[in-house]
Amino acid sequence: MALLLLNHMGNDQNEYIKQHVQVKNPYLDTMEEDILYHFSLSTKTHNLPEMFGDIKFVCVGGSANRMKAFAQFIHQELELPGNPEEVRDICEGTDRYCMYKVGPVLSLSHGMGVPSISIMLHELIKLLHHAQCSDVVLIRLGTSGGVGLAPGTVVVTNKAVDYSFCPQFEQVVLGKVITRSTELDEGVANELLQCSAELKRFPTIIGNTMCTHDFYEGQGRLDGALCSFSHEEKLEYLKKAYEAGVRNIEMESTVFAAMCRVCGVKAAVVCVALLNRFEGDQITSPHDVLVEYQQRPQVLVSHFIKKRLGHIV
Amino acid sequence: MALLLLNHMGNDQNEYIKQHVQVKNPYLDTMEEDILYHFSLSTKTHNLPEMFGDIKFVCVGGSANRMKAFAQFIHQELELPGNPEEVRDICEGTDRYCMYKVGPVLSLSHGMGVPSISIMLHELIKLLHHAQCSDVVLIRLGTSGGVGLAPGTVVVTNKAVDYSFCPQFEQVVLGKVITRSTELDEGVANELLQCSAELKRFPTIIGNTMCTHDFYEGQGRLDGALCSFSHEEKLEYLKKAYEAGVRNIEMESTVFAAMCRVCGVKAAVVCVALLNRFEGDQITSPHDVLVEYQQRPQVLVSHFIKKRLGHIV
Repeated sequence: MALLLLNHMGNDQNEYIKQHVQVKNPYLDTMEEDILYHFSLSTKTHNLPEMFGDIKFVCVGGSANRMKAFAQFIHQELELPGNPEEVRDICEGTDRYCMYKVGPVLSLSHGMGVPSISIMLHELIKLLHHAQCSDVVLIRLGTSGGVGLAPGTVVVTNKAVDYSFCPQFEQVVLGKVITRSTELDEGVANELLQCSAELKRFPTIIGNTMCTHDFYEGQGRLDGALCSFSHEEKLEYLKKAYEAGVRNIEMESTVFAAMCRVCGVKAAVVCVALLNRFEGDQITSPHDVLVEYQQRPQVLVSHFIKKRLGHIV
Repeated sequence: MALLLLNHMGNDQNEYIKQHVQVKNPYLDTMEEDILYHFSLSTKTHNLPEMFGDIKFVCVGGSANRMKAFAQFIHQELELPGNPEEVRDICEGTDRYCMYKVGPVLSLSHGMGVPSISIMLHELIKLLHHAQCSDVVLIRLGTSGGVGLAPGTVVVTNKAVDYSFCPQFEQVVLGKVITRSTELDEGVANELLQCSAELKRFPTIIGNTMCTHDFYEGQGRLDGALCSFSHEEKLEYLKKAYEAGVRNIEMESTVFAAMCRVCGVKAAVVCVALLNRFEGDQITSPHDVLVEYQQRPQVLVSHFIKKRLGHIV
């Protein structure tokens, strides 16, 4: 891990202070037991520092199968001992999320939409806190609809924005709406872009990502069970989004950015665009093409992890 | 199905008109193909009327394992031929949702939160429309936090309300917020309550259900990664909810009620309360107790289906 430390040290060794994951809840450390219900883990029944203390990279994505595939892929990429096929789901006591640990990498699923990823993030951040993890980078690897992009383009998120293109997340707390900033880590985003330049395997850009709370009406699709607008009105909305710097649309980035920021975790969002929304709404590419597209964020993030670990100089 | 028809006929046979599932999208019937992406089904590759045309009951719930268990349970309850263990996931081409068909009953999962169930509902309503289904009842079987209820109590939702206790759902359409009503079918709710009275196996009540977009701050939990309020403020919010008729809290009911209403589908929400939120936040009951609680909505809805089909007079 020498290289990792060096990256953070600057000229003076004293500058380097471990960045612990910060929960923002005074009650948490007074609790006798913390049950991470949706992970089927608990501070009483599991030794979390022993199980998770060495984690430096947490990679999350919507689909359980995809995050299992990523765990197996990173196992091979890091040339770790053992059979990649035998990675075990740590959350096997529940079917809400899947979780795999491969060396310093945790790969876990979060389902679809802000509420689903928000439950996962609360319990993940508590897990990293209980396990006393430090210097963790959290990356969401996802799929998205592209705005003015060729299908297969990978987007590293600059700002996560809401339906009105503002970099903010509205959270209800005890019936009151509060607003949180959704800025992501610029350094990590630039490192990821640099990784893509080194790989030369697929186009990657940095752009804003719009996060919506539904896949059909909220994203201006004409093919849902409900649709009350015209093709022209749809295109007008997507054009406005493009002018505001939006290059892709997905359903989790704002709360992901907001919670990571509040808890002092460096975070990035890397999504592949499965289609260009100016051209249509349905995802019509053949299955094998879509599978290859979905591997692109994995290949990029694997390269990033290997560089950070000093496997690639 | 004679009894089912009689229930709807009244005195004059002509009064009976089949209630078809209504999509509200003029574009849909002009499309050459409709790919139900998150189900891995399509109008071109699947004969939807043949596969799904006889469906009368659609039962949905968050957990894939639970909805598989329900499919197996209803298979036994309806005494259908074949091995219940061998029910096949119709959506096996994707891991977004699971779907099982057992006679006239469709059992499918929707993940956690409004966005996740909303994607499922768009594609389900399109599926029922393409399959030309009629007189369908849609029931959500879920888990929830109880407000002033003993753990294990089953709540049949009267009104699905938002964080301000209003029976409405806010939907963003092309960047504008519109409001939809969340009233559910009173007749179906009363039938379900009657079923519970006949079963005499667990307490069941009718009450309002609050739908939130997160599990921790939005529901006033003191045990999340973030918490900025006191124990007293939490109790004050829950008391206000109780005074507004709220008896349980979950994360899907408002959009479920709103979309079913717009599309002319009779719908109900049946959730068991896993804990009493006045007493705490963590779900601490032993695993076997929680498993039995989660079977209660299944037992109730199974009784409802058997009555409607004339298996129980």
